[in-house]
Amino acid sequence: MMFTARINVMPLRELLDPQGKAVAGALERLGIGQVREVRIGKHMILKIEASGPQEARQIAEVACTRLLANPVMEYFEIALD
Amino acid sequence: MMFTARINVMPLRELLDPQGKAVAGALERLGIGQVREVRIGKHMILKIEASGPQEARQIAEVACTRLLANPVMEYFEIALD
Repeated sequence: MMFTARINVMPLRELLDPQGKAVAGALERLGIGQVREVRIGKHMILKIEASGPQEARQIAEVACTRLLANPVMEYFEIALD
Repeated sequence: MMFTARINVMPLRELLDPQGKAVAGALERLGIGQVREVRIGKHMILKIEASGPQEARQIAEVACTRLLANPVMEYFEIALD
């Protein structure tokens, strides 16, 4: 069966996010100052061939751990459709 | 009130996603060939000051339209917590 995993890889909450800070500043200069804070990471959509949802989630976790996320600076979250 | 908007900005479905293709190839070389397709975009978390959820969503939409997404190559989706 084919599953779709939606993965977010985000900078750890304890770390500064300079890209997010830059975007927040740009939004303020555009007059959209109601946006108080921005954090920016990656969103990845994976199509995974697996026998069931549990296996699909496991494959997504292995992909995150081995390649997609850097645990020193990032955390990840997985949602399975 | 403070709202949290979670925004995905993704490459349009009709377009090639070379970064996703590269990651899919790397996963296969790592022995995670069950991942058949990868598409990669951005995930952004915005803290928005607004009087209600409708206004917060509107602000998020303006931010996407004016800065965060490039409609020629990308689409966006907004989820409000």
